[in-house]
Amino acid sequence: MDVANSSHIVVTLLLSRKYLPVVVDNFHNSKPKAIHACEKIAREALGANASQEEKDSCNVDLIQGDIADPAVFNGIFERYSTQGGIYAVIHVAALKAVGESGELPLLYYQTNVSATINLMQSMLRYNCLNLVYSSSATVYGTPETIPIPETSPVQPESVYGRSKGMCEDIIKDTCHAERSFNAVGLRYFNPAGAHPSGTMGEDPRGKPGNLLPLLAAIAVGRYAQDGLKVFGDDYPTHDGTCVRDYLHVMDLAKGHVLSLDALEKAEIFKSCGKTGNYRTFNLGHGKGQSVLDMIEAMRKASGYDYQYSIVGRRQVIHCFPSSACMLILIPFFLNRMGDVPDLTADPTVAERELGFVATEDLESMCRDLWRWQSSHPNGYDEPEGSTGVSAQ
Amino acid sequence: MDVANSSHIVVTLLLSRKYLPVVVDNFHNSKPKAIHACEKIAREALGANASQEEKDSCNVDLIQGDIADPAVFNGIFERYSTQGGIYAVIHVAALKAVGESGELPLLYYQTNVSATINLMQSMLRYNCLNLVYSSSATVYGTPETIPIPETSPVQPESVYGRSKGMCEDIIKDTCHAERSFNAVGLRYFNPAGAHPSGTMGEDPRGKPGNLLPLLAAIAVGRYAQDGLKVFGDDYPTHDGTCVRDYLHVMDLAKGHVLSLDALEKAEIFKSCGKTGNYRTFNLGHGKGQSVLDMIEAMRKASGYDYQYSIVGRRQVIHCFPSSACMLILIPFFLNRMGDVPDLTADPTVAERELGFVATEDLESMCRDLWRWQSSHPNGYDEPEGSTGVSAQ
Repeated sequence: MDVANSSHIVVTLLLSRKYLPVVVDNFHNSKPKAIHACEKIAREALGANASQEEKDSCNVDLIQGDIADPAVFNGIFERYSTQGGIYAVIHVAALKAVGESGELPLLYYQTNVSATINLMQSMLRYNCLNLVYSSSATVYGTPETIPIPETSPVQPESVYGRSKGMCEDIIKDTCHAERSFNAVGLRYFNPAGAHPSGTMGEDPRGKPGNLLPLLAAIAVGRYAQDGLKVFGDDYPTHDGTCVRDYLHVMDLAKGHVLSLDALEKAEIFKSCGKTGNYRTFNLGHGKGQSVLDMIEAMRKASGYDYQYSIVGRRQVIHCFPSSACMLILIPFFLNRMGDVPDLTADPTVAERELGFVATEDLESMCRDLWRWQSSHPNGYDEPEGSTGVSAQ
Repeated sequence: MDVANSSHIVVTLLLSRKYLPVVVDNFHNSKPKAIHACEKIAREALGANASQEEKDSCNVDLIQGDIADPAVFNGIFERYSTQGGIYAVIHVAALKAVGESGELPLLYYQTNVSATINLMQSMLRYNCLNLVYSSSATVYGTPETIPIPETSPVQPESVYGRSKGMCEDIIKDTCHAERSFNAVGLRYFNPAGAHPSGTMGEDPRGKPGNLLPLLAAIAVGRYAQDGLKVFGDDYPTHDGTCVRDYLHVMDLAKGHVLSLDALEKAEIFKSCGKTGNYRTFNLGHGKGQSVLDMIEAMRKASGYDYQYSIVGRRQVIHCFPSSACMLILIPFFLNRMGDVPDLTADPTVAERELGFVATEDLESMCRDLWRWQSSHPNGYDEPEGSTGVSAQ
């Protein structure tokens, strides 16, 4: 995902006043300024009468390091072992561009899979036994049931999705072998929006790959809208355009804090039996929004009058399901046209077991995204209030 | 597998007089003596009139190194880059004990999956574009069709099997992204036997996990046969005991040389189209043998009068299929009893496309295994002809 999910998780952890995050980042697709914005929001939330000690508790231990290097994790666990150790890991480190993943599969598997194996080995070595793992709704591939329950088969159709599915298997197997290890896999649907303060948000490098950030970037003048194309309006949805389940990043972040709480209480694992303490949950809104819905919502939020053209369905090649059976049948599937019409989450299990409810609606997602984007047309790099650059 | 497959591949490569192997091994479950035995067999096959140069061509470049270390591969590719490079890699390095894999999943995923990712990155960096990968029939889990065609769904039921399935996906995705990369995945059924010379064979550490090596070890006095149990005689097979597809290790080795030949000709990839040059083939006999068949065959080969007891089916917990759907349904599957009754390969695709036919029968597998085991009761460690140790 192109949204800066991790910084919104960090600020939500700080605001919880319960969990103190240590952040490891190689700053591949993020900047330290995002974490500094989190600290500022958390300090301001304390109010004017906060003590210095309280203010200091909003400082994040920010460690620059590459998760491909096992020594990074070991060093951090080692350092904290004299301070009571680390309670849990929220593992959001991954390469996330679905299209790029098909072009650079080994880089994706190394970054997403090998690094997860290394991380878990470090966790076991240092007796850190709680994991919240960022999985993705892409593991469902083309699901048979909409809204999608967690019981849908895992059948990813991209390298990115397969890397997430592999990590889920690896985590599940580890929970089975190590009965004291507890893990939650959160299958993200489409995170969108920004912190309501307008001081932190997405800061993607290059052209945004997702719809909402692209609409925001167009409205702020970073990209000309010539290229704004809607791929297909003949899908079986309410207006013919594809439907996705958008979720406010602050709701997404809340799901992580609820997962940490749930790991502590461990009630979610009662149904696991001999299979080990691993559960997966959808993090979605449970309500689908079409492409045209999103354009209209961003028009309202930004005041920008989007001009778009409806073009034919994209040619999406579903050629790599993970069964050899399908490989043989490929010639028949190769030219299957178009995206999956509807990918909406069934959020009932996450609500029942984690207490997770996405409270923010499309309007607030677009409003908060626009608040951030309009005040930071080029992300964290520019001083607030500077004018946008011309369309590229 | 506990059989020393790799050394039999090495000797078959040397005897082909076409491929010169470079062997990388950490000697975790093997010894340099196995490679020296290969060299000796290859030199003797040249006959008495061979020149010194011909004899020298039977020397294997044996490199001790751990595949977990990416520098090992890079160093070897670098060294050979000034000598014309390396044509292909036969990747047989893996941890292979199904039971152990469930207890040590992270070690298995690191050794089998992360190392494969590293290897392939090295291969691409040094323009080595042909791979023969040792996969396993375990990727089929409990197949619906017997004999098992390559089109059976990939649904492994063990960590070991999942590690193999993941590697197949990673290789397939790499072939898709890198159109000049060619790979063959060989799904081994049950390799057994030894080189007919009796000078090389399996040398497992600890008690053999597979039936035939265990029978040989009992006959040679390494293990008491008190523990020889047949788990279940009420399966739907010709004598009620489980049926597996045993394949002579020299046939298995031949399959690898045929795969190298096929990579060169590339005809096997004509059907792949846009999916990239990756094909999987069963390496099996196509004929199933029951547990009682194997005991009788080893009795004939060794002259040892096996006493066994028939006990109930093993409790095999099939609790980790790779779909989340099945995870939820687990309570109903948890106590499914017993092994898969019949795992016999459909070898027709390998025959048609690779020209692979397993010519050695059960009798020769047992005879060759016994020739090796009886002359090397403790494997490569003891001088030939020494007496066996007492049962442990």
